[in-house]
Amino acid sequence: MSSPYQTRRRIEFRDTDAAGIMHFSAFFTYMEQAEHEMLRSVGLSVMQPDGESTIGWPRVSATCDYKSAVRFEDIIDIAVSILHLGSKSVRYRHEFRVADRLVAVGEITVVCCRIDARHQIASIEIPAATRERLARHTV
Amino acid sequence: MSSPYQTRRRIEFRDTDAAGIMHFSAFFTYMEQAEHEMLRSVGLSVMQPDGESTIGWPRVSATCDYKSAVRFEDIIDIAVSILHLGSKSVRYRHEFRVADRLVAVGEITVVCCRIDARHQIASIEIPAATRERLARHTV
Amino acid sequence: MSSPYQTRRRIEFRDTDAAGIMHFSAFFTYMEQAEHEMLRSVGLSVMQPDGESTIGWPRVSATCDYKSAVRFEDIIDIAVSILHLGSKSVRYRHEFRVADRLVAVGEITVVCCRIDARHQIASIEIPAATRERLARHTV
Amino acid sequence: MSSPYQTRRRIEFRDTDAAGIMHFSAFFTYMEQAEHEMLRSVGLSVMQPDGESTIGWPRVSATCDYKSAVRFEDIIDIAVSILHLGSKSVRYRHEFRVADRLVAVGEITVVCCRIDARHQIASIEIPAATRERLARHTV
Repeated sequence: MSSPYQTRRRIEFRDTDAAGIMHFSAFFTYMEQAEHEMLRSVGLSVMQPDGESTIGWPRVSATCDYKSAVRFEDIIDIAVSILHLGSKSVRYRHEFRVADRLVAVGEITVVCCRIDARHQIASIEIPAATRERLARHTV
Repeated sequence: MSSPYQTRRRIEFRDTDAAGIMHFSAFFTYMEQAEHEMLRSVGLSVMQPDGESTIGWPRVSATCDYKSAVRFEDIIDIAVSILHLGSKSVRYRHEFRVADRLVAVGEITVVCCRIDARHQIASIEIPAATRERLARHTV
Repeated sequence: MSSPYQTRRRIEFRDTDAAGIMHFSAFFTYMEQAEHEMLRSVGLSVMQPDGESTIGWPRVSATCDYKSAVRFEDIIDIAVSILHLGSKSVRYRHEFRVADRLVAVGEITVVCCRIDARHQIASIEIPAATRERLARHTV
Repeated sequence: MSSPYQTRRRIEFRDTDAAGIMHFSAFFTYMEQAEHEMLRSVGLSVMQPDGESTIGWPRVSATCDYKSAVRFEDIIDIAVSILHLGSKSVRYRHEFRVADRLVAVGEITVVCCRIDARHQIASIEIPAATRERLARHTV
């Protein structure tokens, strides 16, 4: 049975702004950090060395809906699930909650790519072993 | 005749990542900076003092589609236009180009709010004078 | 007996740059996060509400020496100690280690301040109760 | 006659924090951006391709003294000068002014390095042609 990956962190001061709340762009970095943590939890890395090159996951789209403001030192729960596991791409959904209240929902679509030593990027099929591990959080 | 607001900046090193390209979250901060610059160009500020409180524009949604990688020191042109000017909200569209090639497109929806001295936030109607100034870039 | 406060975190992707290593400015944000975590561990907050105003700790100086590069996903140990506990100021020292190897050392000096609702800032004596709690990590 | 390199920028919202002022870590990113702009102005880049590798300038130390708070949308003048031009290292000084008032002073020391395709880093002598160009802002 697949289920979301759950993690939790505390809002850092650097992620707040002069309006006194978490800056909207910081939600994207929290989504990314949660995704990377999920990948590590199933034995993967977002930057997997592969001979001379690296298998990585450049983002092709990112979106976030903000429901209510989040403040410095709030503890935020993040649930990461995979909405779609394509042949070359993965669509993640991230739900942010503070004390069980939904505060934001985001989606990020990434494409499996080979990145060579000169930072040239080409999309590839998701390797079968990787796909199998990702299935654990595909809802 | 309304038209997009045009601005240009250079990719900063802090906005790159270990994949050698501009970090996807940085596009959101560039969108915001371009929006604020557009507001100043029509005599507004995203944080307008108003007696004891401040009129601000919290974000309710943000999205970005990435077409191709952008690198350190690339010069990026940003065209900001208003897709929808609601009674309380504004939807911005940002087109990013490097040497005339479209590299990313984003949209951000903001809501006009009164933020009091204790950082309490309440949505309000967009003041008529503000609406008039925004019309200049409403396409 | 006083001793450093110890914490640990993993290098986030957003904190790397196109040179493939942790960006030098990110060490300052990690120092700050470790300081705030230490404050919470002794029952304090870096933003303590106090009636209409807030007791905060603006930085008056910050310095960091970099010994060796740190990379994405490295686990970093941070030891926070107070080198000097003045009447109005605190000088923190932060030692960063990856697998017991010292990779960076930083110092940050902060001043105890009252920040009013209009963001006006004035330095004050460190309250006695706060000073007592800080003594735990004053070396 | 050598003289500081002068540049100017406006404080971005992403660089503010919940205390309502520019975050202390952002000064380091502004120093870096000003250094890179100075390098471009004399025909150099902080990431100079050189065959299979790149000539770069990792930071070995960074320091900043904060004199007074800087706020969102403030226009900040930055004067970059080279205090010391060593055989392998450069020490920069950055003076930040808002409306002619000194608000912060920072120093950053960098070392000339060759960074290979696998992100391995080794210090090298500053090439003579580079040294000559840097002399223009060595005070």
